[in-house]
Amino acid sequence: MGNTFGKIFSISTFGESHGAGVGVVIDGCPAGLVIDETFIQSELDRRRPGQSSITTQRKEQDLLQILSGVFEGKATGAPIALFIANEDARSKDYGHLENTFRPSHADFTYEKKYGIRDYRGGGRSSARETAARVAAGAIAKLFLRHVGIQVQAFVSQVGDIQSPPYTSMDLSKTEENIVRCPDSATADKMIALIDEVRKSRDTIGGVVTGVIRNSPVGLGEPVFDKLHADLGKAMLSINAVKGFEYGSGFGGITMRGSAHNDAFINEGGKIRTTTNFSGGIQGGISNGEDIYFKVAFKPVATIMQDQESVDREGNPVAVAGKGRHDPCVVPRAVPIVEAMAALVMADFVLRARSTRV
Amino acid sequence: MGNTFGKIFSISTFGESHGAGVGVVIDGCPAGLVIDETFIQSELDRRRPGQSSITTQRKEQDLLQILSGVFEGKATGAPIALFIANEDARSKDYGHLENTFRPSHADFTYEKKYGIRDYRGGGRSSARETAARVAAGAIAKLFLRHVGIQVQAFVSQVGDIQSPPYTSMDLSKTEENIVRCPDSATADKMIALIDEVRKSRDTIGGVVTGVIRNSPVGLGEPVFDKLHADLGKAMLSINAVKGFEYGSGFGGITMRGSAHNDAFINEGGKIRTTTNFSGGIQGGISNGEDIYFKVAFKPVATIMQDQESVDREGNPVAVAGKGRHDPCVVPRAVPIVEAMAALVMADFVLRARSTRV
Amino acid sequence: MGNTFGKIFSISTFGESHGAGVGVVIDGCPAGLVIDETFIQSELDRRRPGQSSITTQRKEQDLLQILSGVFEGKATGAPIALFIANEDARSKDYGHLENTFRPSHADFTYEKKYGIRDYRGGGRSSARETAARVAAGAIAKLFLRHVGIQVQAFVSQVGDIQSPPYTSMDLSKTEENIVRCPDSATADKMIALIDEVRKSRDTIGGVVTGVIRNSPVGLGEPVFDKLHADLGKAMLSINAVKGFEYGSGFGGITMRGSAHNDAFINEGGKIRTTTNFSGGIQGGISNGEDIYFKVAFKPVATIMQDQESVDREGNPVAVAGKGRHDPCVVPRAVPIVEAMAALVMADFVLRARSTRV
Amino acid sequence: MGNTFGKIFSISTFGESHGAGVGVVIDGCPAGLVIDETFIQSELDRRRPGQSSITTQRKEQDLLQILSGVFEGKATGAPIALFIANEDARSKDYGHLENTFRPSHADFTYEKKYGIRDYRGGGRSSARETAARVAAGAIAKLFLRHVGIQVQAFVSQVGDIQSPPYTSMDLSKTEENIVRCPDSATADKMIALIDEVRKSRDTIGGVVTGVIRNSPVGLGEPVFDKLHADLGKAMLSINAVKGFEYGSGFGGITMRGSAHNDAFINEGGKIRTTTNFSGGIQGGISNGEDIYFKVAFKPVATIMQDQESVDREGNPVAVAGKGRHDPCVVPRAVPIVEAMAALVMADFVLRARSTRV
Repeated sequence: MGNTFGKIFSISTFGESHGAGVGVVIDGCPAGLVIDETFIQSELDRRRPGQSSITTQRKEQDLLQILSGVFEGKATGAPIALFIANEDARSKDYGHLENTFRPSHADFTYEKKYGIRDYRGGGRSSARETAARVAAGAIAKLFLRHVGIQVQAFVSQVGDIQSPPYTSMDLSKTEENIVRCPDSATADKMIALIDEVRKSRDTIGGVVTGVIRNSPVGLGEPVFDKLHADLGKAMLSINAVKGFEYGSGFGGITMRGSAHNDAFINEGGKIRTTTNFSGGIQGGISNGEDIYFKVAFKPVATIMQDQESVDREGNPVAVAGKGRHDPCVVPRAVPIVEAMAALVMADFVLRARSTRV
Repeated sequence: MGNTFGKIFSISTFGESHGAGVGVVIDGCPAGLVIDETFIQSELDRRRPGQSSITTQRKEQDLLQILSGVFEGKATGAPIALFIANEDARSKDYGHLENTFRPSHADFTYEKKYGIRDYRGGGRSSARETAARVAAGAIAKLFLRHVGIQVQAFVSQVGDIQSPPYTSMDLSKTEENIVRCPDSATADKMIALIDEVRKSRDTIGGVVTGVIRNSPVGLGEPVFDKLHADLGKAMLSINAVKGFEYGSGFGGITMRGSAHNDAFINEGGKIRTTTNFSGGIQGGISNGEDIYFKVAFKPVATIMQDQESVDREGNPVAVAGKGRHDPCVVPRAVPIVEAMAALVMADFVLRARSTRV
Repeated sequence: MGNTFGKIFSISTFGESHGAGVGVVIDGCPAGLVIDETFIQSELDRRRPGQSSITTQRKEQDLLQILSGVFEGKATGAPIALFIANEDARSKDYGHLENTFRPSHADFTYEKKYGIRDYRGGGRSSARETAARVAAGAIAKLFLRHVGIQVQAFVSQVGDIQSPPYTSMDLSKTEENIVRCPDSATADKMIALIDEVRKSRDTIGGVVTGVIRNSPVGLGEPVFDKLHADLGKAMLSINAVKGFEYGSGFGGITMRGSAHNDAFINEGGKIRTTTNFSGGIQGGISNGEDIYFKVAFKPVATIMQDQESVDREGNPVAVAGKGRHDPCVVPRAVPIVEAMAALVMADFVLRARSTRV
Repeated sequence: MGNTFGKIFSISTFGESHGAGVGVVIDGCPAGLVIDETFIQSELDRRRPGQSSITTQRKEQDLLQILSGVFEGKATGAPIALFIANEDARSKDYGHLENTFRPSHADFTYEKKYGIRDYRGGGRSSARETAARVAAGAIAKLFLRHVGIQVQAFVSQVGDIQSPPYTSMDLSKTEENIVRCPDSATADKMIALIDEVRKSRDTIGGVVTGVIRNSPVGLGEPVFDKLHADLGKAMLSINAVKGFEYGSGFGGITMRGSAHNDAFINEGGKIRTTTNFSGGIQGGISNGEDIYFKVAFKPVATIMQDQESVDREGNPVAVAGKGRHDPCVVPRAVPIVEAMAALVMADFVLRARSTRV
């Protein structure tokens, strides 16, 4: 259970880190949408391991296969199945994990929940599953592009190094550096920090900020399926995420209502707000302003240091620091955050079509 | 759409601030559960307006009616419908809102989304809807009590006044003061701050912390329905919530993996962790340690000050500061947070029954 | 579980035969729909017991209460909760059933499934639940009227007395007699048969035929949610239904493909079929022709004769023939069939809005 | 939309007749279940085209690939993705259909619904999709075998040739002849009829009867998800199905209640019924007796005769009778009916685990 996301534009992912591959079935993609394979592949390339010196060196082509639902370059309305075969699996790297629970991984909980565990590279709990999300999210992005909505994300924090606010940066520069921070001075510092962390055989946390522009007014559903509630769930479902906030977020706690309220004004016939502490969402529904949110990632649990742990019988064991892993997950998390945000928005665009008589 | 929450233990709420009342249908409550009406009413009383000097003075008895699903004091397996009639509606207080969009309320977004709006007290967007959640959550709590899981929440921050960490307080003291902070010294400061804010005709934000104890290992579903993802969605669906974090949360951003990882140990035959930055959840699944999380609430949007806004035609109008409202929402939000957490946990307890062959 | 129907236009019913009442929450009714209470009440009156000499004499006003979701006569987009209080409950009539399993009722299966049973009048298994469906279905009908789709049903068979095919009758005459067969000669025979059956203290089965006119082309979803599959589930979920067929139905078994195929023709620019064995549905999707189907009802299980059965301990007992019951369920089933068909169609109309880009 | 079936044991199929292949993702298969690949393949072989002289001669190996969710021969609790590549696609056979609407096929409705159509072999509307269901159903059968429930189906009617009732035949003989009727004398007549029909370049309808034995008491959910309602939907979702009945079915219409009621008796401490007109289901819930039902299939729409139709512009065209098709679908439908019944039962077995406290 729990492998499906979305109500109308709905995705179901499958696959493990070291099985045949990972994939996704998209049910509800509107018919007629032009499916740009090159774009989907380019999104996968943004998430792919081995893309830069600050990411894991695991080699995967992550080549997209479209198994169904596309005919003559367009979505037919049938389920779109996408598959990405695993290549550089190296299962033998993981044989030592058969009986060991790695600290702050899902080994222990999967074992106890299911009574059986595909221990190779974390199996289903591996972040490799997010390749399927990125592929599906690319199709959601194509749909959003069609309706004029823009979803962007970038790295806004690594350790204690923070970028300026999104409103004072040019987000089109996000891809200009390997850490995916649009501010090059901040990016340099972030890269230096990640390098230092990597050399110390350790890992570090960070923040990805998401921004959604040109959303129409009226997306999101009260009461439980508020736009930010579904965005939050989407983000919290990404591996290593520990927190989510939108608009003023945790910073709103210490504000007074008189300062926090966003005054409405009439701007050339369009009702807008003078400030945007609401983060573009009021009562769970988009108000037409920028939607923005932050996603907190913990430091990657796999570190290149020996750690004490226990095995399946509860005996003390040492977990060796080996394998190929990211010292900081946020640069590669940027396309994942975008993908999940795009999936949420695509779903709400379609849901909104049933709002009125 | 969007008025249902939960997959097996599922609730659907209905009702508006100034209509006949608010209610909820619970589908999936296990048969045989003893339904303690007195307990449900006591939970409603914790959420009720007018309960103390720091909450709104709106008078509502919030008397519980059970319309179905209970026979001779026990759940029959049929849907349990609960209803709470509105009493002190005073619709005339809201007539001035018919054409006005209050800042940082849902007036504007509802109007634009639906083309029609029950403007009386916010209609469906009113936090009055949470009475239905608290009633349903009380039944979820009864079920959790049956399986030994304990859900608690308390106010951990008002403005910049923070309580000690939950591990150094006695949570059974939460109800001993009107702000619902278990540390009496902190509580006094919080109450003083809320009083000051109220007198300045303003509002202030805060944090409710939730703690779930005695969870079995194995609750939560990968990939999308991770335990913390559903908890996050549940919390973000509560009115005025701007952020959610669990375990190390946003604090984990600046930590190194070597410090953040929770080492496994064998404690008398039980596998436990030495620290709990994971917040009791690994890979989206409970690991048996305490589950804890924070929920950030913005300052209440209704303030006792005149504010500039626009009407439905976009003309500038002044929104008068009148009515009866909370200067800080967190004391009354405590039972709501508990209710939503209980609903999530009850659902996952039932879902877990299908995990193994 | 299992008390919700529909994906976008979704209903959840609650209530028991002898509890406070029965009700329904409609989530997904499009905002702006004019809610004609008089019409809803008139639909309830068509299902109400005691309406004619051939139905049960149980007296119920079945007065509609709208608890939420309607403001100034229109749907607001919030859940619409409807409630119908029980009046003539006479629980004492059912005290003898506490320990007895009535033949071909749900007493035994509910007891074994849930371990607890509201035995009064069948509790949740009573057809009284269908009052909630009829109320919700009336709102679905109002929506269908808005989009131009017409849903009708009538009694086409009682015992071995069959009406002419629907295409040779005027369905507007359905309400002109108490058995709800548009052909008055057939109706007279049906009434006479029901009278005879009632006098012999027995019951008899029958068929309700449904006809949906003016459906647009394109409603229904492959693969599992075919229009006729959801119609079938809707009908089979009605108490006492044993079978469902559409178009040629079971009659198609003995036909050759060359005779059964519906040839396409161009009728003044509109593509139509010369025959309609398809029943207006091809590949699970409406083709614009009349959708028609038959619903088989068994003879009512409650008969005015003593029957042998067993009690909860398995001891032989006699079930006394008393109470007030219908000798034939189909006349009162007509509005129920219409309601369920309307709910299916309303849902598919809304689902179709997401079909194309 | 509409490509997912089941609430807990849930399947989502994908794929088209002439694309890369067809597949299915099973979410909710209990962990630890032994996945017998040989058995799954053998079930696919029963559905495979070209298996006998009375089925289509299209050649497909239908070789099963397991893409995920199985580790060391057991289900891990992760989604199980199954894929069956298309081999003998011969897309050129279908080029003539690009602009033509075949009578009683889904060509017209798909075109009008989606505005785009994969016309090759019917695309998504092809019965080839049922290969995915059979593969998933085989896993459901493995689970049912584990809990002791047996699902069987057989051909009970072809044209006007009917088999004896299931209770008087040995269902283990179903696979002993190519038409899959356990009574060899009837089978011979059926085969002769199909041969005759095939030679006349026509097709004929038929009935598949399903029988479920050893069901525990208590499966099925009131109100909408009655066991027979979900079975009915499952069957009606199979290509070419026009009707469904269970127990007495349409035959119950002409019966009196006194004859139709199934008397309860105590048979050696077990409560049973003397007759079984209820078809093993009362109030939507299994009562422990045999569950049996009939599924009516229309004659296959593709006939080897020229037929008049229209093209996409509404111009008259002749549809040529060519290609490779089944003269009667029921022999190959037997494993499909079993698969869908198994999926329904597996789902209800898991749902029942949450019934009681």
